[in-house]
Amino acid sequence: MTSSSLSPPEKSPIKRQVFHGTFVHCKTLTDLEILHDTYVFVDEHGVIVKILSGDGTGDARDLREDVRELGWDTDVNDEREIFEYVNSSEDQHGQHGEERFFFPGFIDTHIHAPQYPNSGLFGSSTLLNWLDTYTFPLEASLSALPKARAIYSRVIQRTLSHGTTTAAYYATIHVESTNLLADLCLQKGQRALVGRCCMDSDSGANPDYYRDDNPTQSLERTQECISHCENIDPDRKLITPILTPRFAPSCTPQLMSSLGKIAREKDLPIQTHISENRSEIQWVKGLFPECDSYTDVYDKCSCLTPKTILAHAVHIGEDEAALIRERGSGIAHCPVSNSALTSGMARVRWMIDRGLNVGLGTDVSGGFSASVLSAAREASCVSRCAAAGIGASGNLNGNERDTLSVPEVLCLATMGGAKVVGMEDKIGGFEVGKVWDAQLIGLGKPLMRRKEGEWE
Amino acid sequence: MTSSSLSPPEKSPIKRQVFHGTFVHCKTLTDLEILHDTYVFVDEHGVIVKILSGDGTGDARDLREDVRELGWDTDVNDEREIFEYVNSSEDQHGQHGEERFFFPGFIDTHIHAPQYPNSGLFGSSTLLNWLDTYTFPLEASLSALPKARAIYSRVIQRTLSHGTTTAAYYATIHVESTNLLADLCLQKGQRALVGRCCMDSDSGANPDYYRDDNPTQSLERTQECISHCENIDPDRKLITPILTPRFAPSCTPQLMSSLGKIAREKDLPIQTHISENRSEIQWVKGLFPECDSYTDVYDKCSCLTPKTILAHAVHIGEDEAALIRERGSGIAHCPVSNSALTSGMARVRWMIDRGLNVGLGTDVSGGFSASVLSAAREASCVSRCAAAGIGASGNLNGNERDTLSVPEVLCLATMGGAKVVGMEDKIGGFEVGKVWDAQLIGLGKPLMRRKEGEWE
Repeated sequence: MTSSSLSPPEKSPIKRQVFHGTFVHCKTLTDLEILHDTYVFVDEHGVIVKILSGDGTGDARDLREDVRELGWDTDVNDEREIFEYVNSSEDQHGQHGEERFFFPGFIDTHIHAPQYPNSGLFGSSTLLNWLDTYTFPLEASLSALPKARAIYSRVIQRTLSHGTTTAAYYATIHVESTNLLADLCLQKGQRALVGRCCMDSDSGANPDYYRDDNPTQSLERTQECISHCENIDPDRKLITPILTPRFAPSCTPQLMSSLGKIAREKDLPIQTHISENRSEIQWVKGLFPECDSYTDVYDKCSCLTPKTILAHAVHIGEDEAALIRERGSGIAHCPVSNSALTSGMARVRWMIDRGLNVGLGTDVSGGFSASVLSAAREASCVSRCAAAGIGASGNLNGNERDTLSVPEVLCLATMGGAKVVGMEDKIGGFEVGKVWDAQLIGLGKPLMRRKEGEWE
Repeated sequence: MTSSSLSPPEKSPIKRQVFHGTFVHCKTLTDLEILHDTYVFVDEHGVIVKILSGDGTGDARDLREDVRELGWDTDVNDEREIFEYVNSSEDQHGQHGEERFFFPGFIDTHIHAPQYPNSGLFGSSTLLNWLDTYTFPLEASLSALPKARAIYSRVIQRTLSHGTTTAAYYATIHVESTNLLADLCLQKGQRALVGRCCMDSDSGANPDYYRDDNPTQSLERTQECISHCENIDPDRKLITPILTPRFAPSCTPQLMSSLGKIAREKDLPIQTHISENRSEIQWVKGLFPECDSYTDVYDKCSCLTPKTILAHAVHIGEDEAALIRERGSGIAHCPVSNSALTSGMARVRWMIDRGLNVGLGTDVSGGFSASVLSAAREASCVSRCAAAGIGASGNLNGNERDTLSVPEVLCLATMGGAKVVGMEDKIGGFEVGKVWDAQLIGLGKPLMRRKEGEWE
């Protein structure tokens, strides 16, 4: 399968466009809609203004009347109004007459951009020693801008190639390289939430060589990154700054409370980790004995908002789910990472039943794949294993209802993610009023070569 | 990552060749060897006759003396002796100066070729209802040769593109389309064990519309396929017929015993399924009450030989492992399939500790990916989850030693598979005396396009 990102680059003048072909999207968890022979009209702001069905024959529809109704000038000499036309079945555009369809861009609700070179590197570690052994040394090295540029360019290109048109990125603690990540996302046309990692605690979570000195410094640095994003994309068309307290053990309550306050004042999203690994949960319990739960730590610091993304939530309990639901925060489910680091199997059906918003995250590099589709596959597999009660014990005591179907995991990858990143009115499906944010999937033949230069 | 198959097509005259670059292979489970600046000499029969190190500078070595020692005529005007030269680091051959290395071709020890179009289709089924709902209707439809040709061409091309240079294929019950699969593998240069599915039982395992009528008919049809393979590739250079009793519930003891006899008389391999799913095991117990175990069913029919491939073996016990070990049969571990169909987590370390030969199988389409590399990744993940005791219960009571490392799963994908398919003297690594059977891995940049025709 090949996929290609079709997000228009922000800087180039956007034409009015009409896309014709097959459109597949997930309206709800259970309603995967397939629209054949359909026309999607996109205005000069990149917004979908009309969706029409063809006559079912696949023949080109005469669009003159439709265009007049939209008030579009049909003069083809006006460069801003040339139509682009994509046909899903004809040979003239497709490779080998391949089957093709449009699908909403994937939304990666949790990815660490600087960790991309470490994908697949985890040895036999679990979360806490993985951070010390593999992650912090690499992140610290991104103080060097040339290295940051190389890594960030690659991770953006790779995720775009996997169909990720929107990503919630953790950067590092460094202001300049975080700002560079925002610049590169804007330049390459990827919608992004970009967060400088805040980590000021001396709890032992942060290494001496890689941390903020104190809450004040952490907030100042964060403000520099917010200002940069506001400067390069004042309307948050593609780039949104996101407040990023790394995880509770990394942050002082003072810092987290200040970030919660900024989030409300500036209407900014927040992202952090929660309840990924049992040792981590025990640690948090010891660090914050006054709190009822891991979730309560964030709530006491006003960090649970309707725009908060909580990564993992593998082991949260009933009370925590109720609190997250009440605050309207979302969950970034990262099944590849959870399997690779043996963190556990998150109970996604259980979360959905409790009214939580759930999206998918690759969690590169805890997750070894930058593909949201891989995360969707693993989400299905993990749910089925959990449902069957398949563990080392081999017991069979699960509940078939817990399994996630293919339409459901694809919904998590698009509409679910849109809700989690607070953009459900803008992306995640093909609807009038949403922006055109799509990937073109071609079920093409694999490319292979037998010898140098000889492709078949 | 891109991969390309380098198996020479059987029908074209093979040149003497020298490959230069970086070679990575797994000599044992724990010994992943990386050979930089190395020359591999391949004779006109496709056999590796010499392996030499360069001087470490990466400069081209003067090969005249080496070639003279091999008795090779160095006259470049003789077309059969032109050297091919591949450099792992220079721009002139690579894309963007990408890092490249040779790796042994992957060996897929268990794949159902006719099921390829069903990849990813399993709904909420498990093994037995999955067979009835999805699998048998599709397989039955491959009696039509044009359909068989289309599907088999695609699955061979797809698996080659994933680096699978050797595959143990199940075909269908149909003689003509099974023979076509053998023809196509030979034509496309993929080493293959090709088996017509034998299924003659009226136990209820086989649908009326898709089965052999009786043991005699099943054996006659099987013999036709064996003869065809012997005819197109008498020396089994690429194509080996393999006896394929589908699984115990599908076959009468009479048929299985006859197949066991043929295997010994003709020195042919056998492939079948074993102990995949708990319901299946209970069923087998009821069908063969005189046998001590699922494994014992095959042993009593003389189907356990040193060239027998047993797919899955998720739930085998100590006695069964001991018996398999004694007979020298191999295990095709299919972790993607086992996770997708929630069959369970096979205990690979436990098998290795008991001296069993283990390779990897994609088990398309129980497994949704035709990639052995994906199977290797999932083998690692599953082993880690099993080791951590991660199940629905979230208990942590596993044993870290049970985890499979990246070198170990890559070894299963190559050397392990070579042993399981009975070709450990021929393929699986870079050694003098083995055949040249390799993939060239390029850690290239992802291809993507923003719009029609515009790649960057």
